[in-house]
Amino acid sequence: MKRIALGIEYDGAGFQGWQTQPHGATVQDVLERALFKFGSEPIHTFCAGRTDAGVHALEQVVHFDTELNREMYSWVSGVNSFLPKSVAVKWAVEVGNAETFDNYGFHARFSAFSRTYHYVLLNSVVRSPTLSGRAGWFFRPLDLDRMQEGAAYLLGEHDFSSFRATGCQAKSPIKTMYQVDIRRSGELIVFTVRASAFLHHMVRNIVGSLLFVGSGRRPPEWMAELLIAKNRSLAAPTFMPDGLYLAKIEYDTKWGIPDDGRLAMPMGMQFAT
Amino acid sequence: MKRIALGIEYDGAGFQGWQTQPHGATVQDVLERALFKFGSEPIHTFCAGRTDAGVHALEQVVHFDTELNREMYSWVSGVNSFLPKSVAVKWAVEVGNAETFDNYGFHARFSAFSRTYHYVLLNSVVRSPTLSGRAGWFFRPLDLDRMQEGAAYLLGEHDFSSFRATGCQAKSPIKTMYQVDIRRSGELIVFTVRASAFLHHMVRNIVGSLLFVGSGRRPPEWMAELLIAKNRSLAAPTFMPDGLYLAKIEYDTKWGIPDDGRLAMPMGMQFAT
Repeated sequence: MKRIALGIEYDGAGFQGWQTQPHGATVQDVLERALFKFGSEPIHTFCAGRTDAGVHALEQVVHFDTELNREMYSWVSGVNSFLPKSVAVKWAVEVGNAETFDNYGFHARFSAFSRTYHYVLLNSVVRSPTLSGRAGWFFRPLDLDRMQEGAAYLLGEHDFSSFRATGCQAKSPIKTMYQVDIRRSGELIVFTVRASAFLHHMVRNIVGSLLFVGSGRRPPEWMAELLIAKNRSLAAPTFMPDGLYLAKIEYDTKWGIPDDGRLAMPMGMQFAT
Repeated sequence: MKRIALGIEYDGAGFQGWQTQPHGATVQDVLERALFKFGSEPIHTFCAGRTDAGVHALEQVVHFDTELNREMYSWVSGVNSFLPKSVAVKWAVEVGNAETFDNYGFHARFSAFSRTYHYVLLNSVVRSPTLSGRAGWFFRPLDLDRMQEGAAYLLGEHDFSSFRATGCQAKSPIKTMYQVDIRRSGELIVFTVRASAFLHHMVRNIVGSLLFVGSGRRPPEWMAELLIAKNRSLAAPTFMPDGLYLAKIEYDTKWGIPDDGRLAMPMGMQFAT
């Protein structure tokens, strides 16, 4: 029994999120149907981060166990031939023998060191049809320095209850935020956040609150107050899913998960940094 | 009777092209329905460049004549409220009194000096779901210098019959090519072409042929041979519409068409140039 990991990209606009549902309109459903067609056996996948309806992934990571003997490139090109345009396998690697794992084997979710998300925001007076479904939209002017100042309070280990959706199933609201970058490229603003893990709606709630700061409705220090308050009702409403991209899952290099050292950017964006 | 010009952005992926059809699934149909809802009178529009099914516009220009007295900002925000996410009015300007025009008034199509298109190409081994419908895809390696060398033959006034679709309704196959830029941004390659006007499928046929050059299947000089041959059957097949964006229509400044001097780029891309 081999354990195989796949890197998956998807456009979440047409899906009801990652996790399998009876109606079958999720990314996991579509992927598992393609794996079944490819391997002629039921394959159950585990993902690194369950994304919500409308949320995209540049590189979601999943794993599954199988007795099938196929070349790794075949898990890419073969499975892709059964996937719709909105989902693709980017790479496949064998991450060990599932039977000798116990609790020490690779697990897409539990072995992850960190997750990185991008939020792409169009900051312009008129909405953009060619970015519809792939970027959020905010029409008031935004002050990036104010937002970066507010975001700095989020760095480190905190109780993120103020940014946690009701119904979130995480065991603890305490997560470690490693990075919050906010960069402008023309009329687009890209928020890049990296944390040990994220609570349900956490990125969208943080972005929504940073927009309150950036538009002058709240001071930068408000972000610190929200952390201390641990009260979801005080933070901004959950911002639209359209601009959210799961970009990278970090693992111990011993697993051999492909990593060219570059962070995947939405829409092929390049930053000088 | 006023003549008004509008700048229109649209995601062409869900449309059967620009021009009105009995089935009503075109951008013109959707725009004219929104204008009717806004103004409560039938409004017929004329566009600068008829785009095909699946082709996008960052800034299509249309004009129409109306007796309605509305503020220009109202033609933007009011009409947008009746448009789907895939279409938006970006600006509106009055371009004169329609009754005094004769043949000297503003006409979205006939007053245009030039048209600029971008073609966005994903050049990677695996297709990208988050770029699906908004970028073409070519998986073999491409040599940009070779393509630029081939493209240089297209500059100037030529008979572009080799790149002209059968059924093209243009009066003449002779057009003037002012610019062909080919630039790379990570895994994306952007072709930017500016000409007096384009024949039907001309950009997609040029891009398809340049891919033959870039991938080593034909030498750069082949582009010159194609121009001389004036034979559509010799050039490459029409490349997919997904990555094609009508970006700019150039007019005499006397018409007051908005122009901030920057060329709109797809997906907020920025080039250092």
